[in-house]
Amino acid sequence: MFNPAVTALTAPPVAIVQQWVEGYGGAHGGLIDLSQAVPGYPPHPDMIAALVASASHKGSLGYGDIEGEPLLRQAYAEEMARCYGEAVSADQIVITAGCNQAFITSALTIAGSGDHVLMTEPCYFNHESTLSMLGISTGYVPCRAEDGFIPQLAAIEAAITPRTKALALVSPNNPTGAVYPADHLSDIISLCQAAGLWLIVDETYRDFQDPAESRHVLLSHPGRDHLILLYSFSKAYCIPGHRLGAICASPEAVSQMAKIMDNIQICAPRVGQQALAQMIAPLTSWRQDNQRKMAARAEAFRQAFTQIDGFHIAAMGAYFGYVQHPFSATSLDVAETIAKTVGVLTIPGDFFGQHQHQYLRFAFANAEIEAINALPERLNAL
Amino acid sequence: MFNPAVTALTAPPVAIVQQWVEGYGGAHGGLIDLSQAVPGYPPHPDMIAALVASASHKGSLGYGDIEGEPLLRQAYAEEMARCYGEAVSADQIVITAGCNQAFITSALTIAGSGDHVLMTEPCYFNHESTLSMLGISTGYVPCRAEDGFIPQLAAIEAAITPRTKALALVSPNNPTGAVYPADHLSDIISLCQAAGLWLIVDETYRDFQDPAESRHVLLSHPGRDHLILLYSFSKAYCIPGHRLGAICASPEAVSQMAKIMDNIQICAPRVGQQALAQMIAPLTSWRQDNQRKMAARAEAFRQAFTQIDGFHIAAMGAYFGYVQHPFSATSLDVAETIAKTVGVLTIPGDFFGQHQHQYLRFAFANAEIEAINALPERLNAL
Repeated sequence: MFNPAVTALTAPPVAIVQQWVEGYGGAHGGLIDLSQAVPGYPPHPDMIAALVASASHKGSLGYGDIEGEPLLRQAYAEEMARCYGEAVSADQIVITAGCNQAFITSALTIAGSGDHVLMTEPCYFNHESTLSMLGISTGYVPCRAEDGFIPQLAAIEAAITPRTKALALVSPNNPTGAVYPADHLSDIISLCQAAGLWLIVDETYRDFQDPAESRHVLLSHPGRDHLILLYSFSKAYCIPGHRLGAICASPEAVSQMAKIMDNIQICAPRVGQQALAQMIAPLTSWRQDNQRKMAARAEAFRQAFTQIDGFHIAAMGAYFGYVQHPFSATSLDVAETIAKTVGVLTIPGDFFGQHQHQYLRFAFANAEIEAINALPERLNAL
Repeated sequence: MFNPAVTALTAPPVAIVQQWVEGYGGAHGGLIDLSQAVPGYPPHPDMIAALVASASHKGSLGYGDIEGEPLLRQAYAEEMARCYGEAVSADQIVITAGCNQAFITSALTIAGSGDHVLMTEPCYFNHESTLSMLGISTGYVPCRAEDGFIPQLAAIEAAITPRTKALALVSPNNPTGAVYPADHLSDIISLCQAAGLWLIVDETYRDFQDPAESRHVLLSHPGRDHLILLYSFSKAYCIPGHRLGAICASPEAVSQMAKIMDNIQICAPRVGQQALAQMIAPLTSWRQDNQRKMAARAEAFRQAFTQIDGFHIAAMGAYFGYVQHPFSATSLDVAETIAKTVGVLTIPGDFFGQHQHQYLRFAFANAEIEAINALPERLNAL
């Protein structure tokens, strides 16, 4: 009696992984949660103050504009302009309730049932399950460890079918951490333009990467009318419970997206929107500090794995390390064993694609350096 | 380059109607906004206090459970039990970001592209546009003024096709205000059960109606496993900006819905959820007071139309009056003229279905009695 496109989906991966926590008795010390990406530090105190002020303000109670609060759209357009050195206007921005909502809205804007959208393999599981539940078929561009998990142009071209409407990428990548080089992204959008495809790039982890590395020139490319950039405020501002993300696209695409957003939830929740509108620019240096903190955690993570037998880092960047484990069991079994035996929670590669048995995703940016330093002892005890 | 199922949708009706406001010069006094359903009174002060407390509490910052805050699911299950006199458990509840999201989640749970879902005509426009953008085809059960716009069993039966998966109703109805009698709803669910259909009932306006009239026994019907009840916290608690709604369904359906919610937005925003969890029961008598206030507005509305030439109320209840206008122009043109000429904002029947040229929806519950009393002078001046 249910929609078979929904019954075919597995339960949400993060929820499955969280269930393993109960099975860990604490023998090796407190749980080290490197599963769902959640920075371990709190939001800036000014952000909390702005949230409280917004909650007490009657302007946050009524319905808001479908595309988002005008002040937040403007502030985020200015942030995009700062990031990429290109003019971005507020009418190119849609504020969503998180980046998953930004993705489903973007996907529906450009594809319907029977259409085909390309992703990478490994891919972010919610992109895959979102497309599947909408009846949009998915194709995969295999990414190889020896290429740093960067999708190669020939592999993209080979995966295109007559029904392909878009290529959906994540950079900095989830799960591998790989940051796609600016020149390579330019080549990819040129390829998309030539093939008549949309290019969707989810940049949720942008703020955790050295901007010199993640800055691309897609917004000035002649193919930019069919470019959709996605973002999450959850991670960079440490407010996932407020559910806020953003889309940057052409004004024409934004008009189509507004119709979809109206059906999905009328508008994003307003308390967080109004607080954020005042906080994006003032928190620039705080976010840069956090980016340096993440870089230090990344370095600790890299060091830790030099002391762990059999495991090695296949790729890493921004927020995640994608780690090859030494066991013959699938990553689903290995991750469960690691969680229950030594209290380290990771996401198994199996959730990111069919050929990912050998990998585990570590969200190293979740943890204090102390916890990262404990990884060798824990993993060597397996 | 866009999804044709999306380009085919009109722009969001409420946004179109709001654009007319600028065209009104104020000749007849301030604008009387009877368009989007927004109670004209503020939330209870305790609700504001709870929202502020929740915004300052770090428990609202992180990701929450996909199905909703456990305390809110429990509180709403108890509220459902109070309303209907049937046991309802927390695992039957999903908290969503508003009732439109409750609808899209429910629709995807039971139907995919190529399937067919029945609605009434007139229907709530977001239900129609949601199904259309998902590639789900829609059928209509015509509702006649002489039946009080209650869908008749024979008309439902006649509209069922081999691909029909569900019947989606709204009671108290939007746009007509009609409250479907309990016995009639029992007959409808029996018919759905016999035909193997899901029954979805959107009860957004439940709290604005005399509970003696809107209380049904669907939750104890043998067909209840294929029953989905939808609700909005926006109207009854005056907090649409916080985006909160709810689904009540079988635990099996809730498991499927969690997968969809994860893709749409992971979880509903938490500040409002945490505040509401403490406020549903304490605000029971406040909501009852508001229901009596709405009844007084309804009476004023009824009286007002005895003094308006050519217009008459075709149906009304709970929150809306569905009014027949005397002009030969379509309701879209008439509503625009009324907005721009005499400053009364309504939603034209044309947005609710193909044969609704003669009707206008008045959200009378938005306005103070004073404003309702001004309607005869305004409309007689046309």
